[in-house]
This record gives sequence, C-alpha cells and structure tokens, in this order.
Amino acid sequence: MLSQMRPRGFNAITILQRSLTKTATAYASPFAVNHRRINALDGHSNCRFCSCAKPAAFQLKPNDKIFHQITQIDEEVAKLLALKAKLQDEPERANKNITLKTPKGTRDYGPEAMALRMDILERVKTIFKKHGAETIDTPVFELKEVLTGKYGEDSKLIYDLKDQGGEILALRYDLTVPFARFVGMGNVFNIRRYHIAKVYRRDNPAMTRGRYREFYQCDFDIAGTYDPMLPDAECVKVVAEILTELDIGEFVVKLNHRKLLDGMFEACGVPADKFRTICSSVDKLDKTPWEEVRKEMMDEKGLEGEIADRIGEYVRMNGGAELVDKLAEDEKLKNIKSAVEGIEDMRLLLQYCEIFGLKDKIVFDLSLARGLDYYTGVIYEAVLKAEPLPVENGKKGKDKEEEVSVGSVAGGGRYDNLVGMFNPKRKQVPCVGVSIGVERIFSILEAKSQQKIRTTEIEVYVASAHKGLHLKRMEVLNKLWDAGVKAEHPYKQNPKLLAQLQYCEENQIPFAVVLGDGELSRGVVKLREISTRKEDEVPLESLAEEIRKRLTV
Amino acid sequence: MLSQMRPRGFNAITILQRSLTKTATAYASPFAVNHRRINALDGHSNCRFCSCAKPAAFQLKPNDKIFHQITQIDEEVAKLLALKAKLQDEPERANKNITLKTPKGTRDYGPEAMALRMDILERVKTIFKKHGAETIDTPVFELKEVLTGKYGEDSKLIYDLKDQGGEILALRYDLTVPFARFVGMGNVFNIRRYHIAKVYRRDNPAMTRGRYREFYQCDFDIAGTYDPMLPDAECVKVVAEILTELDIGEFVVKLNHRKLLDGMFEACGVPADKFRTICSSVDKLDKTPWEEVRKEMMDEKGLEGEIADRIGEYVRMNGGAELVDKLAEDEKLKNIKSAVEGIEDMRLLLQYCEIFGLKDKIVFDLSLARGLDYYTGVIYEAVLKAEPLPVENGKKGKDKEEEVSVGSVAGGGRYDNLVGMFNPKRKQVPCVGVSIGVERIFSILEAKSQQKIRTTEIEVYVASAHKGLHLKRMEVLNKLWDAGVKAEHPYKQNPKLLAQLQYCEENQIPFAVVLGDGELSRGVVKLREISTRKEDEVPLESLAEEIRKRLTV
Repeated sequence: MLSQMRPRGFNAITILQRSLTKTATAYASPFAVNHRRINALDGHSNCRFCSCAKPAAFQLKPNDKIFHQITQIDEEVAKLLALKAKLQDEPERANKNITLKTPKGTRDYGPEAMALRMDILERVKTIFKKHGAETIDTPVFELKEVLTGKYGEDSKLIYDLKDQGGEILALRYDLTVPFARFVGMGNVFNIRRYHIAKVYRRDNPAMTRGRYREFYQCDFDIAGTYDPMLPDAECVKVVAEILTELDIGEFVVKLNHRKLLDGMFEACGVPADKFRTICSSVDKLDKTPWEEVRKEMMDEKGLEGEIADRIGEYVRMNGGAELVDKLAEDEKLKNIKSAVEGIEDMRLLLQYCEIFGLKDKIVFDLSLARGLDYYTGVIYEAVLKAEPLPVENGKKGKDKEEEVSVGSVAGGGRYDNLVGMFNPKRKQVPCVGVSIGVERIFSILEAKSQQKIRTTEIEVYVASAHKGLHLKRMEVLNKLWDAGVKAEHPYKQNPKLLAQLQYCEENQIPFAVVLGDGELSRGVVKLREISTRKEDEVPLESLAEEIRKRLTV
Repeated sequence: MLSQMRPRGFNAITILQRSLTKTATAYASPFAVNHRRINALDGHSNCRFCSCAKPAAFQLKPNDKIFHQITQIDEEVAKLLALKAKLQDEPERANKNITLKTPKGTRDYGPEAMALRMDILERVKTIFKKHGAETIDTPVFELKEVLTGKYGEDSKLIYDLKDQGGEILALRYDLTVPFARFVGMGNVFNIRRYHIAKVYRRDNPAMTRGRYREFYQCDFDIAGTYDPMLPDAECVKVVAEILTELDIGEFVVKLNHRKLLDGMFEACGVPADKFRTICSSVDKLDKTPWEEVRKEMMDEKGLEGEIADRIGEYVRMNGGAELVDKLAEDEKLKNIKSAVEGIEDMRLLLQYCEIFGLKDKIVFDLSLARGLDYYTGVIYEAVLKAEPLPVENGKKGKDKEEEVSVGSVAGGGRYDNLVGMFNPKRKQVPCVGVSIGVERIFSILEAKSQQKIRTTEIEVYVASAHKGLHLKRMEVLNKLWDAGVKAEHPYKQNPKLLAQLQYCEENQIPFAVVLGDGELSRGVVKLREISTRKEDEVPLESLAEEIRKRLTV
C-alpha cells in the first residue's frame, strides 16, 4: 500500500543513502587521524560547517572530500525542504484561521497576575541587593555548544532554534551556565551577581503546580577565591531571608556536600566511575522510598546489594553539628580525603549558619544529592514543610497526611569547575550560588491572595461634572502630569459624572478632581476623597501641591 | 573537479527531485479544489503537518497522496541530516574547545551597563505608570502562525524555533502583535497597558549604534472604544515626557494619518491596490531624496510620472494647525472621504497636543508613512534633531552638517483591525500605542555617561581591625541584615584593614563598621564615614539605628 503511494524516485534516495553511508565510513578514519594531527595547532575562529569550534587551522578545506559531501547534503536537504514547503503552501494560503493560544506550557500574565509577580520579584531583588549583589544580563539564547554537556540527561529538554543559515542557537536552560560563560569570557575574577530572568525547558508542564516551559529564575551567585564556607553560608542566609520575607510557610534548607557524598561512595565500595550515576539514584530519595532506589542501584546500575546497603545506612542520616561529630569519628570515612574535607566544610558551614540565626531552618541531610553534574562542594535545597495544596475543584487538602514535604522552592551549590570548562585559563574561579524557584512561590501566593490587587498606581481621576469640559479637563490633567501626579481622565468628551465616580471606586483611586463651570469661574475645583466621599474646594493653582500633601499623609 | 568529488548516488537525488516536482504539480490542482470545498467546514484544531491552522475536518488523511509525499520527504531529510551529523561528529568529539562568545547581534550586559539600563527602564516605567498603565507579560515565543502575515517583508527577520516534534514556534518580533493576540484571546475590551521586554529580529546588527538582534522595547498601548483622538494625544504626551525625562537632546514627534495618506494617494490617482506599496516608498523619504523615491515609484511600482509628481507635492508639506486648514481647503482632497476624516482627526490631535503643552515638540509631516501594514489611523515617529554621533575611533562628529535628523527613537500609531485579525468576534477593539526604542537611548546615554556608576547599593561594610574577628564580624553583619541594612564583609577570615578600607573607597560605600577587641570589650564599634574618613564610637546595641539615621540625613 505504502509502496504504491511512493512517487517514483524515492528508491533512488535509498540507494544514495547507502552509497553516502559507505563513503562516510571510508572517510571517517583518515579524517580522524588528520584531525588529531592538526589538533595541536593554535587559532580559535569558529568552524564554518558545524558548531564544533575547531581551531581555524583545522577547518575543512574546499578540496577536502568530506567538505563536498556535507555541502551537497545541505543542498539536497534545502531542495527537499523547498519542495515540502511548496506542497504545504496550498492549504496555508487558503485558510486564514489562526489558533488563538499561547504555546504549550506557557501562559500570559494579565495585570493582576503581573502586579503580584512584580511585587514578589521586587522583594526578592531587595534582599539580593541587601547582600550587595550587582546584576548582569545575558542573551535569552546561547550558542548551542555553550549548553552542550552541562545538564546530563536533561539536555533533551533544551529548546533549539531553527538553523536559519547562521549560528546554531538554543534558548537558555538556566542562568548558571550563562553566568559561568560570562565570567569565563570577561576579565571578571570576583563578582557577586543576581540575575532575575526567564529560562526555557521542554518539560512536561504541570501548570496548576507552577511548572511551566517558560519560567522565571532568581539567581544569586558569588564567584571568586575566598576563605572556606564564607560565601557558601551567605547563600543559605539569602535563601532563608527570601522565604521568610515572602511568607509562604514553614521551610527547611537541606545541606550536604558533594565531596562527602563521593567519599561516602568510596567508603561503601562504589567504583569511582559510578559515583555520578549512583548520586543520581540518591537524588531520587526525596520522592522515592529507599527500597526502590536500592533496587535501581542494583538492577540498573549494577551495584552489589551489600554496597547499596552500606549507602542506605548513610543516606538515612540527618541532623546538625552532632552528625558532623559522628561522621568525623566514622572509621570508614576517616581515611578518605574527600570525605574528611567535606565533613570539615560542613562543620564550618553549620557554625556559620548558626551565627546567621539559621539553626532551626537548616538540616544536614546525607540523602540530598542534586541532579546536576557540575556541583563540586556544598549543595543546598530548600523545601516547604507543609505545602498549601493548590485549590482544585474547590477542595483544599487539609488532612495531616497530605501535608508532606514535597515543595522544593530553591536549590544550588558550589560549582568550582564550570568557568574552567569555558576558559581553561580561568580554572581558578570558584563559584557558589542559589536559585529561587519563584514560579512555585507565585502559584502558592496567587492561590492565597484573596483581596483585589490594584493594578495601576493612579492617584487622581480628573472628572467632568457636566458637558463641554473636556478641554479644561485636559488642561488640569496636563498640569498634574507635569507636577508628577499619577492622573487619568475618561477618554470621552462628555462622560456621566456617576459613571466616573463609580470607576474611581472600582479601581480604588484615592482622589477625584471634579470640574464644574461654577467652581472654575471662581478658580477652584472640587477635590473628592473617594473612600469617604468627602469633598473640598481647592484653588486650581495649588491643586497638585494639595494632592501631594494629602497623599503623603 | 566538483563532479569528481561527488559520491556516487548524488545524481539519484537530482532524478528524485525532478520526479517529485512533477508529482507535486500534478497533485496541486485537485488538492486546491478539494481544499476549497472543505474550507467551508467548521472545527479549529491545528494541522499536524504544517502551521496552516486548517480546520480539523480538513487535515490531510493518511491515505492522501500528498500526505505520503510530505512524510517521505521528512524521513529522507532526517536521514540526510543524521548522515551529516555523523560526518561532522568526528571533529566535534576530538576537539572540546568552545567558542567563547554570545550569538551574533547580542551582547552581555555587565554590572555597570545594567545599572544604567535599569535606571533608564525604571524612569520609563514611572512615566507609563503616571499615565495609569497596567503591565502584562506574554511568552517570549508565539505560535508561528500568530506572527505570520503581520510584518510584510520583514517577516524574513523572524527567529524560528526548531521543530522538535511539537508546535511550530517563533520568537516574538515586537510587543504589539502579542498584545493584540492577548486582547483577542481574553475578555478584555478596555486596557491601557505597558510592556517592557525584549524582542528578536534577525537583522544586520549595528551594535555601535544600538541596533541588536535582541533588544528591549518599551510599549504603551490603549485598547478600547473612546472618543476621537483622546487616547491618541495621550500617546504623544507619553513619548514627549519620556524623551524629555531621559534628556537625550532635542527631539520632534512627527505626526501623520494613514487615512489622509490613502486619501491623498486616491486624489493623486494611485490605484487602490497600490496604496500600501506606495506607502512603503513614501516611508523611505526620511533617508532617501525625493528623486530616488520618485524613481522607485515609477520604475519598480509602475506609477506614472505625473501621479508621482502630485504625491511629491503633498509629501513635501509639513507644519502645524495652518497645514490642517490648507489641506481642508484642498480641492482634490475635499471630496475624498478618508482624506477628510484624516484631516479632521489631525485637527483634533493638534489641538489636544497643544493643550498638553507639546506645540513646539510636534510637527504634522505628510512624508511620515511608517513601514508596518497594520496601522489604520494616526501614526507617530519621534526623531532626535541633533544626534550626538557615537564616538568611533576617538573622533566625535561636530560639524553642523553631520547634525542631521536620523535618530528615530520612538514610533507607533493606531491599529484598529489587528485584534480582529486574531478573533473575528472582537473586531471592535480599536487600539493605539507607541513603542520607545530604548536601545538607541541606552547607547546614547552610555556614550554620554562619564562618572563611575555604583553597581551595588551597599550601605555599610563590616571590617576587622585585626585577626581573629571573623565570627564576631558575622554576628554584627547578621544584626545589620536583620535590621534591613545593606551590608557586606570581606569573605576572608583575617583580611588586612587597609585593603578593606580601600575597597570601601573604590566602591563608594558610605560607611564602614570597624571591629576591634578594645572597642568590643566596651560594647562599642568604630563607625567610619568613608568620604570624610571621620570615625565615631557607636554602641553595638544601637548600631543599625545609628546607621539608618545617618543614611537618611
């Protein structure tokens, strides 16, 4: 059936395909040899043919055979796509209806949602600034290669841009990698920066729980060589201040250390090449019971049951300073350098956090692992203790059992090698930082917020008491604007007074100026306080001044 | 030479190509007929094969021949691309160097640039809010079809996202079309909104002049049915206030009206189907002499010389209220409905602008046309009169001749039909708005700004006078933070006092708290004013309070 439909010529492509594949195999080996030889040469301009960033001296030459193959593939692909576009063109031209929606996993934010969001972001920003952070901005897309190899399995969630005949680009996946790229590029060795911006992930959206494909992150990072744990402790303080300020309920910041995790794996007998993958398994412990994680370690990752059980003993531990003491005495960990270093870091961190008044907000938790590959030291994760479940179908979960700790609202850690991945000459720029998952916070606070939020800041409404006053109204309005008063008027020549006053009440505007011929002839206007409906006559001359005075009371 | 390089099989593609093209032609006509027939059917789900938004009933069926052709093209393209990737893979794997740059036409903004930008955007926002605007936010990408057919020839500058097996998406090109989509989707009939966000255009960047591929726009729009020219005049006021507030030099807001332009074209004898294309020619008059534009109208657009000359007479006119009177008396325009409507609108607009104190900031300019198709009424464009040329090669253009009006820094107009394009049931949501080209303003003010900008808001630095005080320092720091004071300390256990004080001076931090054992034993610390180097002893207990007091002086 399908072969009957196939237009003549498709078999030809299959033949070409086979032929090309053979050719490619034939050329692959000498090319690779050639490549290694030239690899030692210098020069850094970009490869014109792919995103491989080969040094200039190593670019394919027009007389390389492989060059022609790639060029010809490009040409054939372009032709096929042009043909496809032509085939599709007919329906497109004939039907002009447009799907009226935002892309999957995204939403618009209307004035009320924005008023809430802007308020929250402003409060987050204030705390970042209290800790002396500067801000930077990076493009929303990066060269694809900048993002490649940074996110492990999650790389598949990266949004790629179409190749429109230029660079290969992708939307940023987080703010950390662009920050490291920024530090690697510039002459920056010390910076404490915040960055509030949107990031993009082609994940399965769960919009009622605040999980979108386009979402804000609020990042605070400290780059530079400093004494141990001083910047690390400040990051915990920043997270705790923000979550306290936003009043989203009880939370705890879990703390752990990648070096300690690695040391612990070593002590348990995990082979070194399995540290990262076993770390990923441990990371699932916040949502998955130990028995399942243990099974995954054995069945999927090939660990012996005995080794998994040893890990199981450690990852069940959590506590405070006493846990540090216990681990420091642990016979198996004592002789492992990275474990000892991790434990000493944790001792300092807990001490510093206590000075910062955070003793009852933190827990040293050996089951915290964090998914990303680039962490090298302390890792953090803030979780809400009792999550106010989103209102769905009018029901609100109130059972004790439902109040489980599921809500991760911030996370981060130390990543000392990321800058070096971009610029080998900049190996020594250690970094530590946290990211606030503010979308989750938005949706919690959006569900909580009961009263109507004002979406404008209008202070005065300029109204007409009767017909024929719109020019005079604009004159008064203009004076108020020029004096810096936030003012509006009806965009009607002859609006009804009642409608105007109702508008003021609905929009919670504090004052209305009411113009009338009678008052104007005496050089005065009525100034009405909307909430009390009290009216006074005020000289037109001193109107702006009088309003200012009343607003500051 | 080239044919020798061609691997066996490429000729096959050419054969296939020819065959496919023939097949496509053969199927095109019956398909089109089929299409028209089904076009009457209802249903609005999206087409799976292209971005044509065909009603569901009209989707290609798996047994349609064209369906198989498209599917097979997709498969073959995928195979070819996989092969290409394989060919490219070798160099990529062998060389791990990464190109350290931002994508073409984009840049990072470091702390100093950001401090300036945030300040400017904040001032723009303040003026938008003074005029009672709410803010909204829309996703950075839209369904491609939302953008299709809105930007005329500039559509080629749209950034497409890669088809990763979901919706066909593109980055937003401006904020106006997403706004109209937002209004068309929701239950909004009246809204005055501002939106400050980045937009994306694959244009040729001219970064020294502030032209980027990723750039901010600051939009202010009023949607709703109101009395003539009242919202339109407020938009001019907003532009004038912003340009005055930002102090970037003398400017003028050019005003014109699309209905008047159309009426004028009609009066001159331009055929109705050429109004838009002749409008595009007129739009070039700000950069191109009349003779060239005339030539284009004749040679490229097929206008008779006589008609072009009549247009030429009009577009040379500019002025104020007297021009309105002159045009109202114009024998040729008098009988053309749209011209008369346009002239009456302009009469009102000029009167309102005068009341708003803008008489010397505006000019009614018949050569203003604006490129975009969607304008239907008043159009605006603000230009700088004397442009401070960017400093290039150390030279600064100071000749009178170089001070030409080239800098368009804001533009906009009325677009009454755009919302209706998204939602036919919402035809009656007229809109008018302006967009501030803030990147140009950034680069002018960045070039102007001489003194060092503070990039943090730190109020107090907590320093140690000698060794062994870092825990005490953190305690003091924590008290200050908890009292809301913006404070930092060195991330060193034992920093040198001189280095700490130097840091304060370099970073223009107003105060330093200096801890020393002697003072601490008496319950006091030294509070140093950095600019005067004056030091006082302050009780530790009232430190935060004392700092607050001194900062508010």
